[in-house]
Amino acid sequence: MIIVMKTGSNQDLVKPVIARIESLGLHAHLSAGEERTIIGVVGLPLPDSLDDMFSVFEGVDQVVRVTKKFKLAGWDFHPQKTVIPLGDVAIGGHEITIIAGPCSVETRAQTLETARAVAAAGAKILRGGAYKPRTSPYEFRGLGERGLEILAEAREATGLKIITEVMTPADVELVGHYTDIFQIGARNSQNYLLLEEVGKAGKPVMLKRGLSMLIEEWLLAAEYVMAQNNPHVILCERGIRTFENATRNTLDVSAVAVAQSLSHLPVFVDPSHAAGKRAFVAALSLAGIAAGADGLMLEVHPSPDQALSDGAQSLTFAEFAALMPRISTVADAVGRTLPVPASVAKPS
Amino acid sequence: MIIVMKTGSNQDLVKPVIARIESLGLHAHLSAGEERTIIGVVGLPLPDSLDDMFSVFEGVDQVVRVTKKFKLAGWDFHPQKTVIPLGDVAIGGHEITIIAGPCSVETRAQTLETARAVAAAGAKILRGGAYKPRTSPYEFRGLGERGLEILAEAREATGLKIITEVMTPADVELVGHYTDIFQIGARNSQNYLLLEEVGKAGKPVMLKRGLSMLIEEWLLAAEYVMAQNNPHVILCERGIRTFENATRNTLDVSAVAVAQSLSHLPVFVDPSHAAGKRAFVAALSLAGIAAGADGLMLEVHPSPDQALSDGAQSLTFAEFAALMPRISTVADAVGRTLPVPASVAKPS
Amino acid sequence: MIIVMKTGSNQDLVKPVIARIESLGLHAHLSAGEERTIIGVVGLPLPDSLDDMFSVFEGVDQVVRVTKKFKLAGWDFHPQKTVIPLGDVAIGGHEITIIAGPCSVETRAQTLETARAVAAAGAKILRGGAYKPRTSPYEFRGLGERGLEILAEAREATGLKIITEVMTPADVELVGHYTDIFQIGARNSQNYLLLEEVGKAGKPVMLKRGLSMLIEEWLLAAEYVMAQNNPHVILCERGIRTFENATRNTLDVSAVAVAQSLSHLPVFVDPSHAAGKRAFVAALSLAGIAAGADGLMLEVHPSPDQALSDGAQSLTFAEFAALMPRISTVADAVGRTLPVPASVAKPS
Amino acid sequence: MIIVMKTGSNQDLVKPVIARIESLGLHAHLSAGEERTIIGVVGLPLPDSLDDMFSVFEGVDQVVRVTKKFKLAGWDFHPQKTVIPLGDVAIGGHEITIIAGPCSVETRAQTLETARAVAAAGAKILRGGAYKPRTSPYEFRGLGERGLEILAEAREATGLKIITEVMTPADVELVGHYTDIFQIGARNSQNYLLLEEVGKAGKPVMLKRGLSMLIEEWLLAAEYVMAQNNPHVILCERGIRTFENATRNTLDVSAVAVAQSLSHLPVFVDPSHAAGKRAFVAALSLAGIAAGADGLMLEVHPSPDQALSDGAQSLTFAEFAALMPRISTVADAVGRTLPVPASVAKPS
Repeated sequence: MIIVMKTGSNQDLVKPVIARIESLGLHAHLSAGEERTIIGVVGLPLPDSLDDMFSVFEGVDQVVRVTKKFKLAGWDFHPQKTVIPLGDVAIGGHEITIIAGPCSVETRAQTLETARAVAAAGAKILRGGAYKPRTSPYEFRGLGERGLEILAEAREATGLKIITEVMTPADVELVGHYTDIFQIGARNSQNYLLLEEVGKAGKPVMLKRGLSMLIEEWLLAAEYVMAQNNPHVILCERGIRTFENATRNTLDVSAVAVAQSLSHLPVFVDPSHAAGKRAFVAALSLAGIAAGADGLMLEVHPSPDQALSDGAQSLTFAEFAALMPRISTVADAVGRTLPVPASVAKPS
Repeated sequence: MIIVMKTGSNQDLVKPVIARIESLGLHAHLSAGEERTIIGVVGLPLPDSLDDMFSVFEGVDQVVRVTKKFKLAGWDFHPQKTVIPLGDVAIGGHEITIIAGPCSVETRAQTLETARAVAAAGAKILRGGAYKPRTSPYEFRGLGERGLEILAEAREATGLKIITEVMTPADVELVGHYTDIFQIGARNSQNYLLLEEVGKAGKPVMLKRGLSMLIEEWLLAAEYVMAQNNPHVILCERGIRTFENATRNTLDVSAVAVAQSLSHLPVFVDPSHAAGKRAFVAALSLAGIAAGADGLMLEVHPSPDQALSDGAQSLTFAEFAALMPRISTVADAVGRTLPVPASVAKPS
Repeated sequence: MIIVMKTGSNQDLVKPVIARIESLGLHAHLSAGEERTIIGVVGLPLPDSLDDMFSVFEGVDQVVRVTKKFKLAGWDFHPQKTVIPLGDVAIGGHEITIIAGPCSVETRAQTLETARAVAAAGAKILRGGAYKPRTSPYEFRGLGERGLEILAEAREATGLKIITEVMTPADVELVGHYTDIFQIGARNSQNYLLLEEVGKAGKPVMLKRGLSMLIEEWLLAAEYVMAQNNPHVILCERGIRTFENATRNTLDVSAVAVAQSLSHLPVFVDPSHAAGKRAFVAALSLAGIAAGADGLMLEVHPSPDQALSDGAQSLTFAEFAALMPRISTVADAVGRTLPVPASVAKPS
Repeated sequence: MIIVMKTGSNQDLVKPVIARIESLGLHAHLSAGEERTIIGVVGLPLPDSLDDMFSVFEGVDQVVRVTKKFKLAGWDFHPQKTVIPLGDVAIGGHEITIIAGPCSVETRAQTLETARAVAAAGAKILRGGAYKPRTSPYEFRGLGERGLEILAEAREATGLKIITEVMTPADVELVGHYTDIFQIGARNSQNYLLLEEVGKAGKPVMLKRGLSMLIEEWLLAAEYVMAQNNPHVILCERGIRTFENATRNTLDVSAVAVAQSLSHLPVFVDPSHAAGKRAFVAALSLAGIAAGADGLMLEVHPSPDQALSDGAQSLTFAEFAALMPRISTVADAVGRTLPVPASVAKPS
């Protein structure tokens, strides 16, 4: 860490800073320029809030953190790309992974029908919400455990793995009894006790980026899970909140490249929540894969106009089946692969 | 709700929309213009996700919600301003309420010393975190129950009421055993199960606005608490996340006026978290009161340069004592009042 | 346009609204519901600021615009995709168009060398700034007319077309004497007199999106150019300003799809300015093409570490040559094409 | 400036950086830590784009600018607060200055009537647009020179000074012939040639902050004016663009305090454009003054429901007259003053 003193800050201002550095068992390395003094802070471990701590001192102009705050999520700690094995799926491997399914598990029939349709088109993992975070307390909030049972039955029926959201620490055990992957939603992306709880549960965790979360904060949220000895975190970019309202959120496609430059964790894109409108889901899916995403999470519903939630952004079965070979072609173009069944395959 | 069809949408596109409206037990009121058809949806109750539901239909251009999604938090439901009685404090009443104290409860001495200082300057409620949400898992996360005991002791010693953050439903009972007001932090502002749990606990709840939360979403979060028969919610604006980084967050001072135009709930401002830098706290405090806030929440620390968290934005005792009469003067100017002890009073 | 009155707004409030509508030569179509009155405004032409105008009236709750504000830029007016012919280039056609070159024209040698390199790799248009908008008045602001001469010489030497920025109406004639395409920078995206002046000049205009410009505002800026009988506008998304600072701006890749759904104009992406860092330019280039962009604008410099501006985001010749076949492959994958010379072609 | 090398960057990576520093006539001051090398750049003048320049080099992790980019606008250069004399008005002095008037000059009667009303209530400067930047080319764009004549007549009639917007360099001479203060609108806040032209014209310039302008960029825009030997710049905060849409823009009230901490220039607030709705203008006016603003710019119209632009945010004469004594009271509370005529004075 580097502490830059203000122009003309004299010894009376520099001394308390040095004293505080030394009180923390660290060393100060002074460099007195013509105009200002610069203090390097040397020693380990550096407390994480050090920058905050020193910006308080009179005479301090800027505090510059040189090291990253995350450790387990970064390349320094783990120089190989993380690949998460899940049956015959390898999340983060050479093959692109497609997660698809309805926003909410509404009925047994709707879920099974959707599971069969997305499996037939090449998806490997079924999504479906049994516990739904809703902006209003008066909206449909999911079927709860009954929803989990239906998802498990769909897994039985299709061989798909399943992912579903858990909203609170008390539900982790129950949800973990059914699901293959825990999903942490954007609204819970900084619900640290929940992150630790799913960390302890040991199963893979998909961590949606919060609507106004810096990429560094996202990796620190992953760090909460990983610090519980759970290395299997999937990052999922799902749009950030900006001034533009032509789409529900603004897909930060750069975040895929940035996160991969900072972290070895797999990075997914959720084009459905980013777009908020079905018409733009295909373009964002292809853009995400082209930017280097390891997979996509897509909302699919048998009849979006009857959906209890997120109908506007859900693809029909036909739309999903038509999109898969297009994703596959772009995956090939960027040196990845997405096998699709012959039945939906692109015409040569 | 009004559904605007696209130019030239014919009966084949209009009919399914009407069918869906009627399937929900509602009525469609058609108005066929020269260029387009407009459909009014009449009947009650309107499902909350109705706009989402109809935007899916082919031929629909726009869906316009006419009624607000929140009910209990709105003026229609409760035409008197909410005043929350708490001993001799009346939050939301004519008198401005000042909450002050350290970011974190660090030690018994630090907390008691601060409690005495802020009480002496006219604060009525002591803040202090025993459970701290931290961006990094490696930072100081509070003293837990020991912190709560210290707060309770400070209440004994000074007569101040206390407010402290609760981060997860499982802690509500324990925290509620000690605190007078539950604080829900910005990161938990859409942690709906936590909102319901503090709603059930029956004590007043201060709800910080999330970093990227629309004002309507903030009121819907309040609605989660109120739907548990807990009318005592305090809204607290603490800065939103924007592109500007000269301050930690951007205080949305308009949100005070907007929230008060939509809701009868008391609205506070937290200038410390918004500014992130001590130098701007005074200006934002005065601006908040001038905009009509019912109170402020301020961070105060005996020696900010030794603080374990948020030192950069904490006022010293002397700064707080100097600020109180200034707040009081502005409160007078906008037709409110903030009595301050003679010892800190402004010179005439 | 639809005017929604507040609950319980009576005839005394409705009448002045109707009077105002009729004073504008329009007709009011009343629909009195159980709870509120809704007024349709019928007639043409609707003044553009009508929504603003009526939101003022007491008793009005919401004003909903049903028609789009832009006309010439929209599909209704021009149902074929715009293709701009420029010698043997067809901007907006089946073939992807690559614009490349240095941020600034610095020297004759630098510009010619770059022009040859990008032409050899398959670019069709050379970019280069002769007039540079700079945040600080003390930075390098371009070579002016000497820069234009150098660009023209590079065109001679390579057969590339050229594009360069014009910053003020008074320079339009001079710049137009040299350039093939006018570039309007993000900072001038709402400099309406400049937009009209380049509109009159008759040559194609590339319109960068402003840093905080809504997509609708972008199309209205295009409308300023088009209203001067100049149909040849190219939209260019170059990143918007958000809270995230890991990249210089946030590439709004959805804007490509949204703009194309609203407008027949070609849409380009500028990954260099969006990323601000060379390392992310390739990912954003591929994402832009996958999302459906008609072309890219890329910064390339012989030695980025000596560049007078934007070195950090400029590709080297080798990096550009390596990127072109990758773009070409993704273009194929989304049903477009980008021919690249055999010398840089991808290995089969 | 400080250059932080990446962990483990060796001499081969450090040397080119040092060579580049020395090629610019500057000196490198090396500090090799255990983990990384840090290079201080010493010497003057530092090119403004130095940080950009060095971030390109391989092995460089971060470049930290220590000095501010603006000079003339900063306290270092001009340690006294700037007070701009304008007849008997002293902008930036102890007394708060109120600018008021219609958005657009529509007719002679409307303008004179408004001028008399705002003068009677204590405003000192009349605002009114003769050249209007409009998002759509089809909206009312002002009366042009006829509007300027009307403003001048209103000045004659009332003794008020006048301020009006200039949109393009070619209009500076004409507008300057009439106006007392040039207004640069938010959309032109980075129209650098216009800034230089009004700089040369020698009259005071009010510089609205752009919708997505960092405070540092705002001061650099002021620097463009000041570099033309025109020290009389007034900064005006008018709301930034954020995700929140309950108000037209988000008033960044902190920007008042931040700008005053960085610059000696007067800082105004425009609550009308920030709010976009008349109902919130009073709260934002008081908040702006409480935060330390040197003045306000307010839209006032004889009958807002007939206004050709910005009616929704314009105050009536009665509302303005009622607001002035409230502003005056808050001004007193923060140690400033705003004399208001007895006719509008607050009841004691």
